[in-house]
Formats: sequence, C-alpha cells, structure tokens
Amino acid sequence: MGGSLARALRELPARPQVIGFSPDHTERAAAVAAGVLDRATETADEAAGSAELVVYAVPLTATLALLDRHARLWRPEAAFSDVCSLKSPITERARALGVTSRYVGAHPMTGGESSGFAASRSGLYRGAPVWLTAQGAQASVRGRVERFWISLGAQPAWIEPDAHDRQMVRASHLPQVVANVLADTMRSAGLRRADVGPGGRDMTRLAGSSPEMWRDLLETSAPELASALRAMSEALAATAGSLEAGDIDALMRLMDRTRAWKGEGSASDP
Amino acid sequence: MGGSLARALRELPARPQVIGFSPDHTERAAAVAAGVLDRATETADEAAGSAELVVYAVPLTATLALLDRHARLWRPEAAFSDVCSLKSPITERARALGVTSRYVGAHPMTGGESSGFAASRSGLYRGAPVWLTAQGAQASVRGRVERFWISLGAQPAWIEPDAHDRQMVRASHLPQVVANVLADTMRSAGLRRADVGPGGRDMTRLAGSSPEMWRDLLETSAPELASALRAMSEALAATAGSLEAGDIDALMRLMDRTRAWKGEGSASDP
Repeated sequence: MGGSLARALRELPARPQVIGFSPDHTERAAAVAAGVLDRATETADEAAGSAELVVYAVPLTATLALLDRHARLWRPEAAFSDVCSLKSPITERARALGVTSRYVGAHPMTGGESSGFAASRSGLYRGAPVWLTAQGAQASVRGRVERFWISLGAQPAWIEPDAHDRQMVRASHLPQVVANVLADTMRSAGLRRADVGPGGRDMTRLAGSSPEMWRDLLETSAPELASALRAMSEALAATAGSLEAGDIDALMRLMDRTRAWKGEGSASDP
Repeated sequence: MGGSLARALRELPARPQVIGFSPDHTERAAAVAAGVLDRATETADEAAGSAELVVYAVPLTATLALLDRHARLWRPEAAFSDVCSLKSPITERARALGVTSRYVGAHPMTGGESSGFAASRSGLYRGAPVWLTAQGAQASVRGRVERFWISLGAQPAWIEPDAHDRQMVRASHLPQVVANVLADTMRSAGLRRADVGPGGRDMTRLAGSSPEMWRDLLETSAPELASALRAMSEALAATAGSLEAGDIDALMRLMDRTRAWKGEGSASDP
C-alpha cells in the first residue's frame, strides 16, 4: 500500500516531495534507489515530524501504536491519514489523543495478497473505490485528503466510521470465516478438497488464507463479526427449517433474490 | 452430458453403434448431421428399446419418469445407467421396479454451466472422476458400465449410493445454499455486490445460479441437506461464541485446520 502510494505520487504532474520510512532497511534503500522516495528517514518519528500529510500504511495495531507516539511530533499544520480496513478503532484513538480535527481515515478497496515494496505498483489506486471517514476533521483537512486520493485516480466516497466497519465486517470478514467454517464442515464429513466441484472450490478458496494476517482484524471486529455470524447462523437454520417443512418455494425465492442481487454488478464483475 | 457422451463414443477405436434421442428435434437432427449419432429415434421409448446399454442423461425427475416407462421396454440383456448427481433416489426406484440387477448408476464430476448439444465436447470425460453405484447389479453389468467409462478416459470409482449422496450434499448442495444465504445476509445489511472485495466475490459467485436448475436437487436431498445446514449453522454459532468470549485462538486453530485441508489439493487446484 505505502510503496504503491509513493510510486503513484511520483507520477503526478505536480509531484509533491515524498518522504518515507519502512522498518525494513532494504526496502527504504530500494525505494530511494528507484527514485520512488525523495528521502527515506532512519526512524518513523522523523518521517512523521517532516510531512504536511502523514499517511500510515501499516496494520491496525501498528497504526494505533504510531498514533500514540506521533500525536506530539507532527508539524502544527500537518494532517494524518491511514489505509486500515477498519476505521472506528483509529477514529476512537484519534479522539482519545485529541487529534480528530487533523484526521481523515481512508480505506482503499484494492490490493492483493502480496505486500512489500517489491509488490508495489503506481496504478494500484487508479479507479479504486476509497472509503473516507472523518469525525470532527477541519474542512481544509477533509478537502486535502479527498483531493489527495482524487489526484491518484481513485474514487473516494465519505462514510461514517461505524457504518464503514459494519459494512466491512459483512463484505470481508464474514465471507472469510464462512469459508473456514464451510471447509471445516466438509473436512469433518470426511471430504477431501479433491472431492469438491468447481462451485464448492470457489466457496473454500479463502480457507487457505493466512491466520496471522487475520488475527488483528478478527480481534478488533469481534463483537460486530460475532453478530454477523449469528445472523448468518440463524438464516441457515431457517433455510434448514424450510427444507424440513418441504417448503422448496422458500429456497426458490431466496435464490431469486440473491440472483437479482448478484446481477446488479456489471457483466465484467464475475 | 448426453451429447458429449455420444461424441466421445464416436472417437473410440472400436466404435459402438450410437442411438440417441432428444426431445429437441433440432438437436437430434444436428447430432445425426454431425455424424455424432448413427441413428436418432423419434421417441425416447424407441431408443430405450434398441440399445444394449441405455444411458439416461436427463435431470433426476425426468430420469425417474423414464425408468417407470422403460422398465418393460428394454431388451432382455440390456443394462441401464444414468448421470444424475444423486444416486439413492434412482437406486430406490430401480429396486421398486425390480431392475437393480441391470442398473449401475454413474455420476461424472465434470461439466459446466452450459448444456445442450451445442455445448457438447468429446473430451468432457477424459480424466474426470466418475462415481459408480450398484446395489444388486450383476457382475457382468458392473463390468460393462465400468469398462464403458474407462474406455472414455474417465476415472470411475465405486461408492455406496447413500454415502455418495451424503458426500454430494456437502460437496455441492451445501456450498450452493451457503452462497445464497451469505449473499442474502449481505443484501439485508444494505451491501451491493460492488462493495464486496475479491474474496467476498468468490464467496457469492454461486448466488447467481439458476433456481430452476436446483429445485429438483434441493427437493430430493432435503433431509440430508437440512442436516448439513444445521451442522454448519451450529458451527457458525460456536465460532460467534468464541469471538464473544475473546477466544481468538479458537479461530486461529480453525483457520490452521482448513488451510491444511485446502493445501492437500495440488498447486494446480486453486
């Protein structure tokens, strides 16, 4: 995320000065050598104290720890942002630190499984939806962060932090855990993945996701995710009840509804 | 399925005479014109009364209806088979009709979303796993149907009808309904499919499946599917409970288990 941001900034007609830090020394050197950074700092604190707009592109708990340390280091006029997939925890921390006026959160809906500078690319944000959140940010800070993303070709849209996180839990965390539970149900029944057809394979591909990548996200969204899992659990039990009652029409209506919902996307969005 | 079977038979070194019927007159004519059938009959009854091995390649309820009609029409030495994805209902009907000695069921684990003669291809069964079921079939009939599939390059394996159907319900019907219920949960929460990332899209692709294609299968497997849905519903509720209790390690263990399960497939089996 951070490497791709620096690359995209470098290609702007009115190119800003880009100062970067990575805890990985090799990455810092590579980014400067490639001309992607104007300057790499030796510490995160130094980078945070130098910029007009500070963007944190690290996991959630690392972002929170850096905010605690940097709230007194930023330049007086500096704004800060981040790219975490949950916005409420950071909004709350900003409030606790008394810095909401300078904070706009961002969540770019893009990226892949690979990370690190080697995987970065300047076009990552072009055309990408980017959720923006602000609670108490100055109008000038809101405008600055919104223009920042527009300049990179992204499509920013504003949302409340809580609404964003509820949506993300259902758009991303819920399908992940459902894939795990479905795969575990198949495994318990003695199925190998080789016994599963193309549709079932789609439905268990996420079962291969890295647990460590998810720990933070699951922990932070635990209450909201638990509630989504309970809703899904009840809907599955209700569907089982329809089948037991011989009410196949209830399942046909369910399939009609979700087919229409899926069809709302474009044909190029399989 | 039927068109591809006829095409595959035509390419055998010792090519058998292939007699076919389709209720679609255009398809029959096309199959004869393409040299795929030696002869197309005007009725299903005529085809059934002519062959040494009769293979039904129609949906489940249509297969059952044809068995009822054809049990007295087959040639005395003829065997029959089918390609339905559930084997118990057909095995039971064969038993009721007193024709189990002549029946071996087949379920080729192949095919795509498109159907009809225009979508048929001779290589469909090459390398495909094919489940075979028999309860009371003569050894000669078992051998004949097994050799039939081996000659087409398929990989037949024997299984009990009940065990097959339980497995299919979990490998195929369960993921279908889980995709529908997950999509419906997202829909109810106000999500559009465009709001969903790549993983969530994998998990809702099946939400676009045709309800009418599934009606028969859902109805026939209702008790077994209901039980699989209840197992999955309980596993989701248990996972919600772990999250509510702050037991993230339980989710890490779940993810480790299913990651190992998924990894059992080959790298070329994504």
